[in-house]
Amino acid sequence: MPSSRWTTWAWMLLLSGCAMGWPKQSSSATSDIRNCTISPPFLPPTVTDTSAQLNALRQRMQFYNISAYIVPATDAHMSEYIAERDARLAWISSFTGSAGTGVVTTKKAALWTDSRYWTQAERQMDCNWELQKIVWTDSIGEWLLQEIPAGENIGLDPFLFSIDLWNSYARVLQGSSRTLVPIEDNLVDLVWGTQRPPSPTSKIYLLPETFTGSTWQEKVSGIRSQMEKHSRSPTAVLLSALEETAWLFNLRGDDISYNPVFFSYALLTTSDISLFVDRNRLSTETLQSLSAQCPGPLCVQVEEYDQVRASVQAYAQGDVRVWIGTEYTTYGLYGVIPQDKLVESSYSPVMTTKAVKNAKEQTLLRAAHVRDAVAVIQYLLWLEKNVPKGLVDEFSGARYVDKLRREKEHCRGASFETISASGLNAALAHYSPSNVSSRKLSVDEMYLSDSGGQYLDGTTDITRTVHWGEPTPFQKEAYTRVLMGNIDLARLVFPSETSGRVVEAFARRALWEVGLNYGHGTGHGIGNFLSVHEWPVGFQSNNVPLVKGMFTSIEPGYYQEGEFGIRIEDVALVVEAQTKHGAGEKAYLTFEVVSLVPYDRNLIDISFLSEDQIQYLNTYYETIRQRVGPELQRRQLEEEYEWLRRNTQPFSRGTLVAASLGTLAITSLVSTLLPDRQA
Amino acid sequence: MPSSRWTTWAWMLLLSGCAMGWPKQSSSATSDIRNCTISPPFLPPTVTDTSAQLNALRQRMQFYNISAYIVPATDAHMSEYIAERDARLAWISSFTGSAGTGVVTTKKAALWTDSRYWTQAERQMDCNWELQKIVWTDSIGEWLLQEIPAGENIGLDPFLFSIDLWNSYARVLQGSSRTLVPIEDNLVDLVWGTQRPPSPTSKIYLLPETFTGSTWQEKVSGIRSQMEKHSRSPTAVLLSALEETAWLFNLRGDDISYNPVFFSYALLTTSDISLFVDRNRLSTETLQSLSAQCPGPLCVQVEEYDQVRASVQAYAQGDVRVWIGTEYTTYGLYGVIPQDKLVESSYSPVMTTKAVKNAKEQTLLRAAHVRDAVAVIQYLLWLEKNVPKGLVDEFSGARYVDKLRREKEHCRGASFETISASGLNAALAHYSPSNVSSRKLSVDEMYLSDSGGQYLDGTTDITRTVHWGEPTPFQKEAYTRVLMGNIDLARLVFPSETSGRVVEAFARRALWEVGLNYGHGTGHGIGNFLSVHEWPVGFQSNNVPLVKGMFTSIEPGYYQEGEFGIRIEDVALVVEAQTKHGAGEKAYLTFEVVSLVPYDRNLIDISFLSEDQIQYLNTYYETIRQRVGPELQRRQLEEEYEWLRRNTQPFSRGTLVAASLGTLAITSLVSTLLPDRQA
Repeated sequence: MPSSRWTTWAWMLLLSGCAMGWPKQSSSATSDIRNCTISPPFLPPTVTDTSAQLNALRQRMQFYNISAYIVPATDAHMSEYIAERDARLAWISSFTGSAGTGVVTTKKAALWTDSRYWTQAERQMDCNWELQKIVWTDSIGEWLLQEIPAGENIGLDPFLFSIDLWNSYARVLQGSSRTLVPIEDNLVDLVWGTQRPPSPTSKIYLLPETFTGSTWQEKVSGIRSQMEKHSRSPTAVLLSALEETAWLFNLRGDDISYNPVFFSYALLTTSDISLFVDRNRLSTETLQSLSAQCPGPLCVQVEEYDQVRASVQAYAQGDVRVWIGTEYTTYGLYGVIPQDKLVESSYSPVMTTKAVKNAKEQTLLRAAHVRDAVAVIQYLLWLEKNVPKGLVDEFSGARYVDKLRREKEHCRGASFETISASGLNAALAHYSPSNVSSRKLSVDEMYLSDSGGQYLDGTTDITRTVHWGEPTPFQKEAYTRVLMGNIDLARLVFPSETSGRVVEAFARRALWEVGLNYGHGTGHGIGNFLSVHEWPVGFQSNNVPLVKGMFTSIEPGYYQEGEFGIRIEDVALVVEAQTKHGAGEKAYLTFEVVSLVPYDRNLIDISFLSEDQIQYLNTYYETIRQRVGPELQRRQLEEEYEWLRRNTQPFSRGTLVAASLGTLAITSLVSTLLPDRQA
Repeated sequence: MPSSRWTTWAWMLLLSGCAMGWPKQSSSATSDIRNCTISPPFLPPTVTDTSAQLNALRQRMQFYNISAYIVPATDAHMSEYIAERDARLAWISSFTGSAGTGVVTTKKAALWTDSRYWTQAERQMDCNWELQKIVWTDSIGEWLLQEIPAGENIGLDPFLFSIDLWNSYARVLQGSSRTLVPIEDNLVDLVWGTQRPPSPTSKIYLLPETFTGSTWQEKVSGIRSQMEKHSRSPTAVLLSALEETAWLFNLRGDDISYNPVFFSYALLTTSDISLFVDRNRLSTETLQSLSAQCPGPLCVQVEEYDQVRASVQAYAQGDVRVWIGTEYTTYGLYGVIPQDKLVESSYSPVMTTKAVKNAKEQTLLRAAHVRDAVAVIQYLLWLEKNVPKGLVDEFSGARYVDKLRREKEHCRGASFETISASGLNAALAHYSPSNVSSRKLSVDEMYLSDSGGQYLDGTTDITRTVHWGEPTPFQKEAYTRVLMGNIDLARLVFPSETSGRVVEAFARRALWEVGLNYGHGTGHGIGNFLSVHEWPVGFQSNNVPLVKGMFTSIEPGYYQEGEFGIRIEDVALVVEAQTKHGAGEKAYLTFEVVSLVPYDRNLIDISFLSEDQIQYLNTYYETIRQRVGPELQRRQLEEEYEWLRRNTQPFSRGTLVAASLGTLAITSLVSTLLPDRQA
């Protein structure tokens, strides 16, 4: 699934004057579904009235003497997915998309979100809210400069903005006589009051050793050794992303849907470890694991979650240096550490260490992907049989694939809300169906399924796009070019420590060639029973360089507005490449695709593919047969096994002739006649 | 020629924590030629004793109470090429390379430069100087932290550091209790004294209208209109790069070798224009052109060069906002403008406007490249005849190609010091021969020629690598893969406003595939009778997005240390692409190569090329025939015309068979038998 942090990224690009590989979206691209110029306004029935919330918020704003208040869609840990109690933007605006920023002034309210969410925003927001679609050329900062007179204040909750984002706002407003005012009380929370959902109380649990790459003590030692080697000799690392504490201590929780994390911070010093978390939620077993080596450098002291700021402030009084990740540490925490005691990098050593999976973690993730492939293959076969009968809609399809996954060993549910989109709905990259609006799947339309599972051994994320009838030549060309992009990036050989953004365009070249493109990122890291979008791996400008042992998705797409959507997504492991020349200490890398589901043969026009691409595809299919075939047989899924054999037949130029006749039977015949390349 | 600003770029990457597409260089890669551990030390005869300079500088440092002094290789305009009087680093260290930074402490002296210059530095510097090769992982900042105790000061001339570079140093030292001290007197200049070369006195002249894209008044109006449209409403633009003033006023000078620029600044406000330059150097005609519309908004007031700081400071007292380019405006000028009166962008609107050539400028540049191709073709033919006779060495070759260019219409000399490198010398990417050390060209070695001309209508830059004997299979493969990189980038179709760095890897893919790479950038902008490396166009992270009308070099290479070097460089214009689908308002772009010299057929192994690459090559060759053929005939260069016909024969898979037999005669035969694709 394309990462939602794209918006943050867009912001950074915008503010840094950089640019990316696709054209600006103009505001005139789509007109608003709503008509707020007539009285009464025309609004979709899905809209909610936000007047009461806004009035209450504006009263608070007056009290704090601010003319504008910025409401982001994230939480105090810069999480991509958030808990209900952190859905402040949704509460104040009614817009429930995962990416967006709201700004409320004394007279206006505006929401910025990217093109994935424009339609959703128009369907959810009333006329109190204007939708800002031109995130690219205009900016929130410029809008504020227009709306807020000089000399006035703009309020923000410093615990909801990363240092980097805070600085971006500060830069835009610099010298403009408008002041950014950090307000520690969250004004939305004050207005939300008792209606705000409570803090979670569910148990936080230990991940069994079978599913961890190393013990938490080994991880702590590894981080401390990085602290020692650092030229600034940091005395502590502050962990403020939820993935950091979950990974470091081998603990999991269920505070946020789809993400097995729990609200916490940690301060890891050279001699002590403090975990800031609701102590009541730790099981006896967990507490024992954390305190087994007390007192000592491997003793975890549990402190209250709310104490983090005070504790960090107290610690920072000493002769210390605190290492933080500026991409996701909030301005609120950053502010209590004196400037000369900060050691800043984009990501903390916990984040960067977590990104490189060790041998055991790689094995675990690979194994999860085999079981995941079984679920997806079962689903694709089921669709093939039931769609022509008119028995499936988007929602029932999503529920079915979720069910197939849940039945698998070690599965703890979906890793994100399943995207199941037919026809024109798939043109919205993040569309998810509901039981009130769900399109029937049909042999006359393309269908996009983007789903993933949380398994104790790994998190998965895969997208397949299929057509059971007669796709148009343009649909086949677009699909094939998306596939070519996927292949070209997956088979690329590149030097170690190459930045993802430097190679991302290989996934777009085949589309660009004919004037097509897609408007989202090309991939993201993924965790071992952690986030489906795991930073800092990926192909965007704020991702870290690629090294051996990282996992990333590769997911080019193409979206034809009002007609169809295509995305082909696999998860791949960064591995060493065997090269003809060179090498030596300068290792070259490539990808090993660990998602193991064949692509839709009905949508591939083999005539577009080069010999190298065909050869790559055949090798990949052989790997699928070898890894997934035995698992299907073991489970006695004979029909699925046959489906797999049929759908992983090697391609050759011979297939081209057959494919153009459109008859699967002939394809099989030709394949039989031709010597089996894999044999 | 690969850009020397690479070092600045490397610095920025280093300091910003970004990474690029090739591996780190370790300090152990090459051992020092010098041996400073024995007494007396072993030193090459080319070394100069710098003890006197260093002693004198250290005395000054004591006076100013600083423990270290940083000496960059640039001038007050952040010029890549500098005048003799600005060669402070060369004077203090004896190192004459174009990129480097020296740091002198009370006890040590160290020079940082990139791998292109390591050997040169070791051959020029005595044992007072240590060479720092690990620019990548270590940094000058970290070295300073080791060498300078806390509480002490580090001095810099604020007029020799761009804002961005100053801030990078400041960030590294932040919180370390070492203070960066701006010292307005340049300490090297004080020590250099009367021995320092004087300021230039030669005439500054008007570029005839035939060779300009628009009048300076039109350019001024265009910049003012951009100021009006800017959301911060800047009241002035400060021009501090020498290319900016030369371009804006259609003036040229000869203050810096190979670069027709003159020392100057300009302050362009909404109502006034100030040009800071030595008035005595302006011809009557020039003064008339500048003052023809006085008084009024198009009246240029000439002020003394040294007055710029005071004038900007005085201007900045008012209710103004000054737009500057932070990449190249010095900290010294930046410091006199209050923070709230600055409008900062990486490049000023003059720089970005200059980068996009209008139709007339494009025509001019294309025309210069046709004459330039004639010179290079004459040279290649001359080499073919004279190298086998043993009559050519690197230096005489360089002089000959320079002479051929100078004979051409509108030529005003070379655009940089000609690189002419045979065999192992070509492995040094920036090697230039001298009359004391020059290798004989031989049919047994590869030869690399990188040269360019300054024509009144355009600046050129082209590299061809050739072999007149029997190249090894590895040499052919490496050459062919470099060519594939050149072709793959040149024929790429990409969306408008794509950043160069996003597509740069297409020039490396074919090399990476087999574990090969090159350690310099892939291209740079180029001017109309201006700099051969014209910012901000190119493929590096601090270049601006590519738009229609920009010119850039495309120059992948491969360097086998101690054996040979390959580079294939062309200049290309960014043009609109005709795409099968899409397009509309979202224009797609591609490149039109304007360098018009065929590649060495003897080094191409056609079996590596895809059909698409072959087709591209044949189309390019047909363009060469069409554009350069008539020019050769017009000049009655019959032998060159035949050479061109022979060397632009279309390739086909048929050629493959012939080429593998190694007989040119058969190649010609096959070509004759095969239908001529271009006919």
